[in-house]
Amino acid sequence: MKVYDKKDFPVAQIRRFLEPGPIVLVSSAWSGRNNIMTMGWHMVMEFQPSLIGCYIWSENHSFQMVRDSKECVINIPTVDLASTVVEIGNSSGRDIDKFATFKLTARPGTRIGAPLIEQCYANFECKLVDSSLIRKYSLFVLEVVKAHVARSPRYPRTIHYRGDGVFMISGENTSRYRKRFKPQNL
Amino acid sequence: MKVYDKKDFPVAQIRRFLEPGPIVLVSSAWSGRNNIMTMGWHMVMEFQPSLIGCYIWSENHSFQMVRDSKECVINIPTVDLASTVVEIGNSSGRDIDKFATFKLTARPGTRIGAPLIEQCYANFECKLVDSSLIRKYSLFVLEVVKAHVARSPRYPRTIHYRGDGVFMISGENTSRYRKRFKPQNL
Repeated sequence: MKVYDKKDFPVAQIRRFLEPGPIVLVSSAWSGRNNIMTMGWHMVMEFQPSLIGCYIWSENHSFQMVRDSKECVINIPTVDLASTVVEIGNSSGRDIDKFATFKLTARPGTRIGAPLIEQCYANFECKLVDSSLIRKYSLFVLEVVKAHVARSPRYPRTIHYRGDGVFMISGENTSRYRKRFKPQNL
Repeated sequence: MKVYDKKDFPVAQIRRFLEPGPIVLVSSAWSGRNNIMTMGWHMVMEFQPSLIGCYIWSENHSFQMVRDSKECVINIPTVDLASTVVEIGNSSGRDIDKFATFKLTARPGTRIGAPLIEQCYANFECKLVDSSLIRKYSLFVLEVVKAHVARSPRYPRTIHYRGDGVFMISGENTSRYRKRFKPQNL
């Protein structure tokens, strides 16, 4: 499997990787065990602090782990991991150790206890900063406190879920409209 | 400009178009005036009721219009509208009538007073069902009450914002992983 050479990245700019809407992997740790889930429902909520909103279904094993540890990592997989992403979504951390089963490498977080997934293009270490919307909406408000992003390629080939078993793979990247943007909209 | 032939679409399945993360256009009406804004920060929050969370900055003219009318339409533009999407983001409804300026057609909503943008691939008529998170997070919780989606193509070529003036255009669609999904994950 591909291993990316990553560098520190400004947390206020992680929207560059989440706003296009990729499927992400959420890794967490609690009571001496790690887990990973596949997630498609997330949004950027603020630049600074760097806030992300995400939906974790209460039936997911990760729900309790993230809620109780108050930490997780948002990892961005690329298309080479698509099969693994599906298998992670098909299985439960109640039954298996997903890092071991799917031969993924858990790298220690630098600011939190949850593990980074080495094979992903980017890893965003997050703290749960608002748990008040979990009961009503299963909505976790996370703050990205540390970001690690691959040095290349500049734009990852990410996978985006269309439902019904269909993935869209990110396509052409263009800056041909860039000169038309007002500076404050960049 | 392209005009799509649309049909009614089940509101519980609109995640198929929003979960991949496209830039959308939000249209609204208030006090006899229409407006449109460009939006990239949104997420699916529930299938049924069909809930969407979205961030509207308080400085946007649409902020007050959606908050006070308690309605809006989420429209999905395709890549042929990319220049228009940028210009809509660059301008303010305080200064211009965006439908007239950008030669877009306002079609009346069937369940709400806000107008649909005829030239977009899909139109989701929404009601603001929870305004309690607007003050703290600029987060609008919307319920899709009616959906109109183009009959073809099956998968639209949408635009996704990477920040810094760069768009990603949706690429290949594949169901090659479909048979590996557990039915409940479709």
